[in-house]
Amino acid sequence: MRELSVETESKIVLLVVDGLGGLPMEPGGATELEAANTPNLDALATRSDLGLSRPVAAGVSPGSGPGHLGLFGYDPLRFQVGRGVLSALGVGFDLQKSDLAARINFATLDGSGKISDRRAGRIPSEKGEELVQLLNENLKLDGVEVSIVHEKEYRAVAVFWGEGFSGELSDTDPQRVGLAPLPVQPHDDSPEARKSADLANSFVEKANEVLADQHPANTVLLRGFGMHPALPSFEEAYKLNAAAIASYPMYKGLARLAGMALLKEGEGIAGEFETLKQSWDAHDFFFLHIKPTDAAGEDGDFDRKAAAIEEVDAQIPGLMDLGPGALAVTGDHATPAKMKSHSWHGVPVLVNSPYTLPTADRFGERPCAGGSLGVFPAEEIMGYLMGHALKLNRFGA
Amino acid sequence: MRELSVETESKIVLLVVDGLGGLPMEPGGATELEAANTPNLDALATRSDLGLSRPVAAGVSPGSGPGHLGLFGYDPLRFQVGRGVLSALGVGFDLQKSDLAARINFATLDGSGKISDRRAGRIPSEKGEELVQLLNENLKLDGVEVSIVHEKEYRAVAVFWGEGFSGELSDTDPQRVGLAPLPVQPHDDSPEARKSADLANSFVEKANEVLADQHPANTVLLRGFGMHPALPSFEEAYKLNAAAIASYPMYKGLARLAGMALLKEGEGIAGEFETLKQSWDAHDFFFLHIKPTDAAGEDGDFDRKAAAIEEVDAQIPGLMDLGPGALAVTGDHATPAKMKSHSWHGVPVLVNSPYTLPTADRFGERPCAGGSLGVFPAEEIMGYLMGHALKLNRFGA
Repeated sequence: MRELSVETESKIVLLVVDGLGGLPMEPGGATELEAANTPNLDALATRSDLGLSRPVAAGVSPGSGPGHLGLFGYDPLRFQVGRGVLSALGVGFDLQKSDLAARINFATLDGSGKISDRRAGRIPSEKGEELVQLLNENLKLDGVEVSIVHEKEYRAVAVFWGEGFSGELSDTDPQRVGLAPLPVQPHDDSPEARKSADLANSFVEKANEVLADQHPANTVLLRGFGMHPALPSFEEAYKLNAAAIASYPMYKGLARLAGMALLKEGEGIAGEFETLKQSWDAHDFFFLHIKPTDAAGEDGDFDRKAAAIEEVDAQIPGLMDLGPGALAVTGDHATPAKMKSHSWHGVPVLVNSPYTLPTADRFGERPCAGGSLGVFPAEEIMGYLMGHALKLNRFGA
Repeated sequence: MRELSVETESKIVLLVVDGLGGLPMEPGGATELEAANTPNLDALATRSDLGLSRPVAAGVSPGSGPGHLGLFGYDPLRFQVGRGVLSALGVGFDLQKSDLAARINFATLDGSGKISDRRAGRIPSEKGEELVQLLNENLKLDGVEVSIVHEKEYRAVAVFWGEGFSGELSDTDPQRVGLAPLPVQPHDDSPEARKSADLANSFVEKANEVLADQHPANTVLLRGFGMHPALPSFEEAYKLNAAAIASYPMYKGLARLAGMALLKEGEGIAGEFETLKQSWDAHDFFFLHIKPTDAAGEDGDFDRKAAAIEEVDAQIPGLMDLGPGALAVTGDHATPAKMKSHSWHGVPVLVNSPYTLPTADRFGERPCAGGSLGVFPAEEIMGYLMGHALKLNRFGA
């Protein structure tokens, strides 16, 4: 891909409707996408290639990390990203490839050293910010700089700056109240992992000293240790000047992993499309992330998911007016309301450009199953987008 | 898969209708499965995911070994299993990973040292058993134990116990009468292969001495050398307590390779389903193997193959009454009556669970070609079954 890609004037839009794939609630019924009234997507389908994408592996329900890495064209089995890394990037921290990141939960220790609340009574964001400042001012580690950035409420991120770290570390969160926090343990015997475990344990010890008087937020739990996976950037891989429009930190973090610029999103779905319009001239690739579909699916709310899809549908004419060279409308995984969770099922994919082989007159799982893209790995979507945007040279003589 | 799999209460059934895939006898005609009257499978299809599986590689017709290894989720190109190993496991021999196995055919040597009958006049099983006993009592090798187990008529299995063997050996069977048996030759230069070849040649020499007076069964031909491929078991790979119901030794051997328990099968197709019912509580995975479809296909008997499929169809309601969490109905390869042989064609796959995206109202090659699973590698079926049975954790954050 890196060898074949060329810069052109045309622009690519990857519209990710999170958890788009669905299932009928009952045999014989429609899926969320099929039930939604989507005149604009249906009209687009008559001019588009359709297919069902398979994220990660057969039967495997992906988290958002591997789901998006696949959409961005990376092998999600090869590049595994710790949640701490996504959080650090998501809050805008300029994580370097040698840094170690972990998520922090403020929590409550009782008098006997056991966790009595894993979320410190869900302290408000103002309190969380204050505690983060307290830690940044008072917590010093020997020979290693550490930065703590507040995320939201009781959640924050710690980034250890330096060299010779490993993210192969266990969490301290015992996952249940009434238990003592666990010590961080290395997953392997490398000196890097042992050093990093010592460092993390020392961090917890010193945080406990600093927070001693801050009940209910008198300790921290560390989770999701990880290091930057050192992905090739979109610039390197595709020669694309890529930008992301996403309203949640995790998706911003994923976009930053791929070297995308983060655009300030507007309010709600319409606001994100408005941002796209305003930034149209500045980039040649846009990742636009829509969250409410996934949230509705997780809640088991079929109708709310369908309504969110309809809200996206209403933005399609404005998007097409911008004149993208290639557009994909898809999801990072299925989140069927029937299952109230991410699932392994095929995700509808629509690829539009002037060079398509349309097979149906509507967008939905069933038309996609019989489409000209077939059932195919999600990692291939970026290749199709690059091809449809005429950004790939011929391979071979 | 090993990292994501979890134990749950739900049960998985893999119903393998051997050689299920077929072809129309004439253009415009139906396949065996499409021609068969299968009201129960058709009703199930309206509540199931459909697809066509591709065994091994494009255009490649698999033997039963690779066909089944793929269905069990193993890479059939990576794990190649000698026929001797399947025979040894099939007759219930507790083959260890360091043992060497080979198939034996009793045969006839004429006065000039040439093979005059490669099957020793198809001696009856009683005679075969008697000769195996004679060999076991009288054939001694230097420093290595060997066990011979009778299979059927003129066929037996030899297992060499010990260490430092290799299965990379040529057969002694010249494949034609009127030729002398071939010496066993190593396929590579390893000391293991050379040692094993010497051992096998010494075995033939000593067998000839023991059998000298046993015309027409006065020699043995050795074929299909191999060692246990050391597959991860179903317990290791999937945390499944798996059992097999199969009426032929080879399929029992394949199931044992994967660490499955062998259940005593009842008489015929109905008997196998009866065994399933009686053993339902004892296991959480069942491999049920149906042979007559493949045999009819090999005979070129389209109607008999369709009738065998109908016989399976009649058992579906009883199977569904057991309440499997996930069920696959498929084959290990196609055996089109038109070709009278195994073939490379797509094999219909039906996966049923509460979480499906049905696309058709009948089970057949054509509906499967447009199904929501697409055309996909047979190795992925186990992933789908694990997913549908809710036995896989989410992958990644």
